[in-house]
Amino acid sequence: MSEVLKIFKIGGAIIDDAAQLGRFLTELARVSGAKILVHGGGKGASQMLQNLGIKPQLVQGRRITDAATLGIVTMFYAGKTNKQIVALLQQLGVNALGLSGADGNVIRATRRPVQDIDYGFVGDVSEAGVNAALLGQFLQSGLTPVFCAITHDGQGQLLNTNADTIASVLARALAAAYAVELHFCFEKDGVLADVNDETSVIPQITPELYQRLKASGAIAAGMVPKLDNAFAALAAGVEKVVIENALRLNEPVKTVLCRS
Amino acid sequence: MSEVLKIFKIGGAIIDDAAQLGRFLTELARVSGAKILVHGGGKGASQMLQNLGIKPQLVQGRRITDAATLGIVTMFYAGKTNKQIVALLQQLGVNALGLSGADGNVIRATRRPVQDIDYGFVGDVSEAGVNAALLGQFLQSGLTPVFCAITHDGQGQLLNTNADTIASVLARALAAAYAVELHFCFEKDGVLADVNDETSVIPQITPELYQRLKASGAIAAGMVPKLDNAFAALAAGVEKVVIENALRLNEPVKTVLCRS
Repeated sequence: MSEVLKIFKIGGAIIDDAAQLGRFLTELARVSGAKILVHGGGKGASQMLQNLGIKPQLVQGRRITDAATLGIVTMFYAGKTNKQIVALLQQLGVNALGLSGADGNVIRATRRPVQDIDYGFVGDVSEAGVNAALLGQFLQSGLTPVFCAITHDGQGQLLNTNADTIASVLARALAAAYAVELHFCFEKDGVLADVNDETSVIPQITPELYQRLKASGAIAAGMVPKLDNAFAALAAGVEKVVIENALRLNEPVKTVLCRS
Repeated sequence: MSEVLKIFKIGGAIIDDAAQLGRFLTELARVSGAKILVHGGGKGASQMLQNLGIKPQLVQGRRITDAATLGIVTMFYAGKTNKQIVALLQQLGVNALGLSGADGNVIRATRRPVQDIDYGFVGDVSEAGVNAALLGQFLQSGLTPVFCAITHDGQGQLLNTNADTIASVLARALAAAYAVELHFCFEKDGVLADVNDETSVIPQITPELYQRLKASGAIAAGMVPKLDNAFAALAAGVEKVVIENALRLNEPVKTVLCRS
């Protein structure tokens, strides 16, 4: 039986609200055992880009990470948000270690190839780019790695990367050594059977039930890519995927996705 | 005989010049064995404060780190400069790990007490605050820790800290386990006997010679605190202190301070 490793992903909504971030981190500190946190961006970087007069670059409605934007998001995610979270976790007795993908070469990415759109300095990641051995050493030392969504290409270039994808790729890469639980934490209690009823949390979703919910249109459109991604992680060896409220990690209400 | 550990400190002048930074990092990558890099700030953070309309806070001519300034310097040092250096070192085959003092609780500081002046969010550090055991593990894993000059107080507060002091304190704290060499790297080849003659590098300075040079006024005023600090480190068990050109690490010209 492998040791359990819980990987938590939080998004921008929690990060943008200091009180909610504090509550989430307090909940996280109460979770026992090996854990990793992956955090997204939040609105702070966009606000700073605006304050500095750097206009968002959009091509066909898609946001482009140009050099100026990359500089600011790296500063904001790796500098401000990441270090703030690390310092707060230290206060809570969690020995957090802030990481970008470049640190210890823990996540090497590939700059997204230009096809229809040149996304700029955006990195795509896969399990092969994860330094699972070093992360294993960090976990054995009692550290809690805290990832921002910045990676590198090994050629000196930092890259903006999707935080959900980082969490999934870490989960897959560490599944060989750990019984990995991947926790997507957001502002709702789980996947809802009825989007208008916050209490309609579906406790468990099998691949079969997921196909039925998707076919019937019961799953909110925004959730579909997340859930597709989650079931792919399960198929790739991740033990469990949990969709839950970032402020209620230690309560029983949540949605657990299972392999069968 | 303990393993040699070389701790390098670079200042803002190198960081502000991308070409020089690249040359320094190339030299650093050629230095064999266990090593740590500590980097100062550079002008980028001041420029950004200005661009954002945050005025430098001065009290009795001393710069104060208020909350807004701390936010920006943390972003800049821990986010931009640190991650850029880490990514470049990775490109050069050095497995760099970027750290603030909060990461892994590697350097815990004390907020400077208010006496004549309230310096704001400034941290004072001592050997006792260094997590030497964890840094030893990182070094044994083949990692090169890269420190920015941001620490924390263990109570959730990040603190702006002097980079020279961080380098000295790390050197002292690691002297029990390693034969530590502390390298202060700057734009000159070493300590000059004649400030107007760049070739007048003094190859070796004993405590006795230092007292004579200081008494005669031969040492430039700006060097005195650095050298006082360096001799204190030697007295505290550091093996060797080197003052050298950041772009000529692997050349023989440099000033070595020795215990006797």
